[in-house]
Amino acid sequence: MDDYIQRIRDGSLKLHALEGEMTSDDAISVRRSFIEEETGVSLTILGKYAITTERVTKRNCENMIGAVQVPVGVAGPLRVKGEYADAAYYLPLATTEGALIASVNRGCRAITKAGGAEVRIHRDGMTRAPVFACGSVPHAVEAARWVEGHFDALAEAAATTTSHGRLERITTHIAGTSLYVRFEFFTGDAMGMNMVTIGSEKAAEVIVAETGVRLVALSGNLCTDKKPSAANVVMGRGKTVAAGVFLSDAMVKEILKADTASLTEVNTRKNLVGSARAGSLGFNAHAANVIAAVFLACGQDPAHVVEGSNAITTVDPVEGGVYVSVTLPSLQVGTVGGGTAIETQQACLKMLGVAGGGEPAGANARAFAEIIAAGVLAGELSLLGALAAGHLARAHKKLGRG
Amino acid sequence: MDDYIQRIRDGSLKLHALEGEMTSDDAISVRRSFIEEETGVSLTILGKYAITTERVTKRNCENMIGAVQVPVGVAGPLRVKGEYADAAYYLPLATTEGALIASVNRGCRAITKAGGAEVRIHRDGMTRAPVFACGSVPHAVEAARWVEGHFDALAEAAATTTSHGRLERITTHIAGTSLYVRFEFFTGDAMGMNMVTIGSEKAAEVIVAETGVRLVALSGNLCTDKKPSAANVVMGRGKTVAAGVFLSDAMVKEILKADTASLTEVNTRKNLVGSARAGSLGFNAHAANVIAAVFLACGQDPAHVVEGSNAITTVDPVEGGVYVSVTLPSLQVGTVGGGTAIETQQACLKMLGVAGGGEPAGANARAFAEIIAAGVLAGELSLLGALAAGHLARAHKKLGRG
Amino acid sequence: MDDYIQRIRDGSLKLHALEGEMTSDDAISVRRSFIEEETGVSLTILGKYAITTERVTKRNCENMIGAVQVPVGVAGPLRVKGEYADAAYYLPLATTEGALIASVNRGCRAITKAGGAEVRIHRDGMTRAPVFACGSVPHAVEAARWVEGHFDALAEAAATTTSHGRLERITTHIAGTSLYVRFEFFTGDAMGMNMVTIGSEKAAEVIVAETGVRLVALSGNLCTDKKPSAANVVMGRGKTVAAGVFLSDAMVKEILKADTASLTEVNTRKNLVGSARAGSLGFNAHAANVIAAVFLACGQDPAHVVEGSNAITTVDPVEGGVYVSVTLPSLQVGTVGGGTAIETQQACLKMLGVAGGGEPAGANARAFAEIIAAGVLAGELSLLGALAAGHLARAHKKLGRG
Amino acid sequence: MDDYIQRIRDGSLKLHALEGEMTSDDAISVRRSFIEEETGVSLTILGKYAITTERVTKRNCENMIGAVQVPVGVAGPLRVKGEYADAAYYLPLATTEGALIASVNRGCRAITKAGGAEVRIHRDGMTRAPVFACGSVPHAVEAARWVEGHFDALAEAAATTTSHGRLERITTHIAGTSLYVRFEFFTGDAMGMNMVTIGSEKAAEVIVAETGVRLVALSGNLCTDKKPSAANVVMGRGKTVAAGVFLSDAMVKEILKADTASLTEVNTRKNLVGSARAGSLGFNAHAANVIAAVFLACGQDPAHVVEGSNAITTVDPVEGGVYVSVTLPSLQVGTVGGGTAIETQQACLKMLGVAGGGEPAGANARAFAEIIAAGVLAGELSLLGALAAGHLARAHKKLGRG
Repeated sequence: MDDYIQRIRDGSLKLHALEGEMTSDDAISVRRSFIEEETGVSLTILGKYAITTERVTKRNCENMIGAVQVPVGVAGPLRVKGEYADAAYYLPLATTEGALIASVNRGCRAITKAGGAEVRIHRDGMTRAPVFACGSVPHAVEAARWVEGHFDALAEAAATTTSHGRLERITTHIAGTSLYVRFEFFTGDAMGMNMVTIGSEKAAEVIVAETGVRLVALSGNLCTDKKPSAANVVMGRGKTVAAGVFLSDAMVKEILKADTASLTEVNTRKNLVGSARAGSLGFNAHAANVIAAVFLACGQDPAHVVEGSNAITTVDPVEGGVYVSVTLPSLQVGTVGGGTAIETQQACLKMLGVAGGGEPAGANARAFAEIIAAGVLAGELSLLGALAAGHLARAHKKLGRG
Repeated sequence: MDDYIQRIRDGSLKLHALEGEMTSDDAISVRRSFIEEETGVSLTILGKYAITTERVTKRNCENMIGAVQVPVGVAGPLRVKGEYADAAYYLPLATTEGALIASVNRGCRAITKAGGAEVRIHRDGMTRAPVFACGSVPHAVEAARWVEGHFDALAEAAATTTSHGRLERITTHIAGTSLYVRFEFFTGDAMGMNMVTIGSEKAAEVIVAETGVRLVALSGNLCTDKKPSAANVVMGRGKTVAAGVFLSDAMVKEILKADTASLTEVNTRKNLVGSARAGSLGFNAHAANVIAAVFLACGQDPAHVVEGSNAITTVDPVEGGVYVSVTLPSLQVGTVGGGTAIETQQACLKMLGVAGGGEPAGANARAFAEIIAAGVLAGELSLLGALAAGHLARAHKKLGRG
Repeated sequence: MDDYIQRIRDGSLKLHALEGEMTSDDAISVRRSFIEEETGVSLTILGKYAITTERVTKRNCENMIGAVQVPVGVAGPLRVKGEYADAAYYLPLATTEGALIASVNRGCRAITKAGGAEVRIHRDGMTRAPVFACGSVPHAVEAARWVEGHFDALAEAAATTTSHGRLERITTHIAGTSLYVRFEFFTGDAMGMNMVTIGSEKAAEVIVAETGVRLVALSGNLCTDKKPSAANVVMGRGKTVAAGVFLSDAMVKEILKADTASLTEVNTRKNLVGSARAGSLGFNAHAANVIAAVFLACGQDPAHVVEGSNAITTVDPVEGGVYVSVTLPSLQVGTVGGGTAIETQQACLKMLGVAGGGEPAGANARAFAEIIAAGVLAGELSLLGALAAGHLARAHKKLGRG
Repeated sequence: MDDYIQRIRDGSLKLHALEGEMTSDDAISVRRSFIEEETGVSLTILGKYAITTERVTKRNCENMIGAVQVPVGVAGPLRVKGEYADAAYYLPLATTEGALIASVNRGCRAITKAGGAEVRIHRDGMTRAPVFACGSVPHAVEAARWVEGHFDALAEAAATTTSHGRLERITTHIAGTSLYVRFEFFTGDAMGMNMVTIGSEKAAEVIVAETGVRLVALSGNLCTDKKPSAANVVMGRGKTVAAGVFLSDAMVKEILKADTASLTEVNTRKNLVGSARAGSLGFNAHAANVIAAVFLACGQDPAHVVEGSNAITTVDPVEGGVYVSVTLPSLQVGTVGGGTAIETQQACLKMLGVAGGGEPAGANARAFAEIIAAGVLAGELSLLGALAAGHLARAHKKLGRG
């Protein structure tokens, strides 16, 4: 080992090249030792992982030195009534935020007792929007018109790169000499960013060849990936999914220790008016908490929590109770690819019955999205109830961090 | 074990009450077995954790059934020249997104070669904004005026709840009969949400007593916590931190395989104009990726990636090269509390020399924020360079997910 | 007259009912006298109008008491090279903001000297988005799917209400139990709000009948009318129009008294980065000034300046100079209807050769939009130049208000 | 006259220089004739103005060729209960949008019958935010710290430029090497943009001298002037003013022909959830309509309708009725300067008793702002009621444009 470290130090061996000379576990070990020496800190604990690393070092994580371990708890059972997920689930939540799981669990109880969360996916499509430089405004508009008139040719070009994805929609957007072409693909059970990027590149080549514009960047931020964006709110990205549940006055009182009028008022003054006053793109209480915890447990990309947080929570006063809903315009999930194949994450997906490719393609990812939406609804119900009942701070005092 | 599972099943033992009857590891094990039986899925791998759980089950994760393991790699060395962090660091990144670490690493090389990233913290304050219901518009404005005229009394009330935090600023915002009071605290080395919530509750009680308004919710979304929000962009939340570096024409060419004009153009058409056209609050390429990976490695709250993604990246053409910067208006980090005490996460913080409380209080959290900002700069540099050089898709093809 | 005033005072004659008993001019006069008595203020000057009022009192202005007179100046000649407007124009600007016309005029000089502004319309469609209440999330999504599958039926229903408009696109948006259906119409030479509202009402009736949803409001704010909105930025409303011009280094120096590098820097730091930092939806210097002045002169709805201000200004450094552009995603104009028939406003439209219905229908409104875009470009050029040259404040000192 | 036109044509006399050779009325006449010849269109009607032009041509409008005449109607009486305006008013509205005045009038009736609109100003300050270029991130932060530590010196510098304005607050914002310093001034009865620009220029000079930063533009768009901006929503600009009124169930039924539950539902689904779903910064029905009409009548800057439209409308269900409010975070008005001195506009201000400078300074502008807020409330009430009652389209059919 010292020999390798010596070679790293003298530059004859690159830190990322260790896997070329030994097994992935050994490479991780050598690399960790090197970092320990460099930093003077013991990192032994990072080496106590149980996952297999050969694939991981190739596909998920360069320069690997071990793994962090994130506690996973469960909330549930959570009754979901979707078109793809129709059962009671235990939701795996990887989190270090005290009180979060207890809170979601309480929401699950309310939902399940109420007969389940009704969930529907309104849109499904992953997007990528290259930006092209044009010679002038007329050139940009002319190119946009060409794109709009040649959907089939572009879909065909994209289709040469993948058998899993399918170009389904194109919108064009102009800003002076910049032309943004937003490609939207069906991506089956994959979250699909890479598939879509590669397909878009091919289509972009056709656009360049036919219109004479110049490709500046494969992502022009109208995608919009991992940045909060009204474009995603308005047009959707990934899954646009909504979940709702009717809670009777009695259930609100019994489970949430609140009343329907307070629940409605909290939602209006906080989630609607408060967010409006803040210039926010998120009109919810803490959708990101639930999304982040499920994403971590299930091997999703945690940077996609950004878009997931663009959720709207509503509380409708109705005869005899309230109808509470959440709408997530841009939830990006996959049950294949990314971190889904790592054993611990895969176990969590299996808990939900959605690991791997679905039948038909896309069914697992959609079921997963439906379950998450129901989980977000549980989290919203519980926090709104807690706020209504005025015991947020007390709950934190008891369970939370210093 | 079967006995416990039986009792859970018949309702005489609550799933979350297991820790009351046995060690935390045993409770985790029983609970996991119960879930395995319920779902018919083997979750053994979740039980192969190396972290100690007693504290975790009390403070971080209810209903724990094990842990997910997230691969950690390193990027670096990254030279940071901040007021709190002034050294070369290996950045721990927990991620499953292939190519991310390689990309950040390339950015680190560029920065370090250029002499390091200059980093400064412009603001530092964690916020919470309760919402109060008032009887009328005049009542709301009268109460707001009272609050603005009684900072000292409110600071004193908040001070009774913590010796770590300190109320430093108050802004008031009206929407009809809703009054939002945004409290901003110095929170030392803690991220501080709970401290601030508890302090705000005390101050809110004073406001209620003195003005006759009614507390509707301790969080009124003007905080704004875990939702994208212009309020955070404009006024800051947590740390407002910026990092910059000058790269000569030669360095851009050698390390990023691009030229300064292309780099500037990509940044303008994508990060500035593209995000503008998308109605976005994030004017960067992929700040969320780096923030999420460091947050995961270091026990931060992954839902705070939402605010972290509100970053702006700039590329100034200057004599002989470019000055590239990132500005993160609302980066929320802590080196104590939350997930920072879990052994694997603590190890990552130690790698950076920022674990635990700083001297003086707050110094470690600030050093950590400076390092992250430099890391985000590395990520931006690399991706902008890759886009400029046109090989984003190729990089994904080789390293990425299906 | 005293008799009428007496009857108004004793309630036997309604203020708005005067036109039923006398000519419109007399009604205006009586009403003004009444207000003079009520307020003790002489309003004689309001009665010194030259426009004919019979139609105005019926179609434009209830309870009329006279007219305000807004000074109109001209800027130009402004060479426009559009698909509908291809000539040199004198732009009528109704304004009381000192220095504005002088500034726009300077921009016109630059553009005309450069050969003219290239202008193109990228989209053209006026929108209205009713909101429907649904019984549940599944009901909302089911109704949305029905709408998406029945474009023809809805277009047919809308077509029964107008021969001028034509339904061209529908998008659906869900938020829990609220369904928003955004109808987009071609409206010929009319700005079209009323036409679209009436057509949408008819289509909404069909939706109600077929899906069982309940119409809550004919406008659900996803239209979005007279509020700043990313939906309009992203999807367009009215005309999406862009104008651009190449200015050589010499012209920038001679006419704008600045250099291309400064112009680019001002645009980046102010219009792009500054607006980003402000959480703005407008990335321009003062597009609203020009739009407001032309709108006032030409009888447009001044509340539509709101959407018009969502403009993006870009400055591309190119070989030998700069290419400067403005893009207006949501410019709402008409050459028939509204205030366009009032004689003074009509005269201004005639100055531009765009009064009344075009041939083919829509051609005049499009020409008008092209001219406005070119005028906005002139305003941007001039102000950017002035800022670059550092004499904004001096210009104001000399020409402006106290 | 032909002689002058000839000289204009041959370039020996500039179009804008006519006032130097004759009276303003003659200059206007000659210029109009020239434009008539150029365009072949008769513009006689533009010359039939009744306002005096000498001051106008110097201060408000270059290259003047006449005036447009905009019909003015009244709505009212409107009972306002503010701190500065406490009376019943007839609101002058200059508009060509049929049905608008009738609608506002109905809202006035409701408010007045209910005892009046309670109005309060929460903030009052006009802003300007220059942008400075810094050499590096540390330089930018260092300069920001200098600014924050030297309020008095900057206020003193600004004070040398005006006796009417007073610097009251400074906030600093960083984006990489760009430093934005947002100056907020009290500006008395003037809207104040020019006063603030000139004062900011002086303060900016001090900053440049003391910190070595470079002034890029006196306006860096964080002001934010005439662009929709969350910064204005969050921090306010001009007057932040709110108006509210309690309407009993009976009044809602009698005057608005609706019921309180429908009113609440319309507001929630349209103004709150609909605007949220649109990524909007305006959460109201048509605030811009009323603001535009009052602004036009009273000589305000119509481009400031943009910021005025950032309003939030709320409907609180309360015992026995509803409390309806509007909040305008950034209403920019003045009763001196700008177009307020033109006779027709001045007459409208006089109708409201707010023309000219107030006693104390600022009292008139504040009274005016309070009246406008009450007027916006009237407009919201009426339109919400109309939507609730389902007769928006019918109203348009009868009164509106083609």
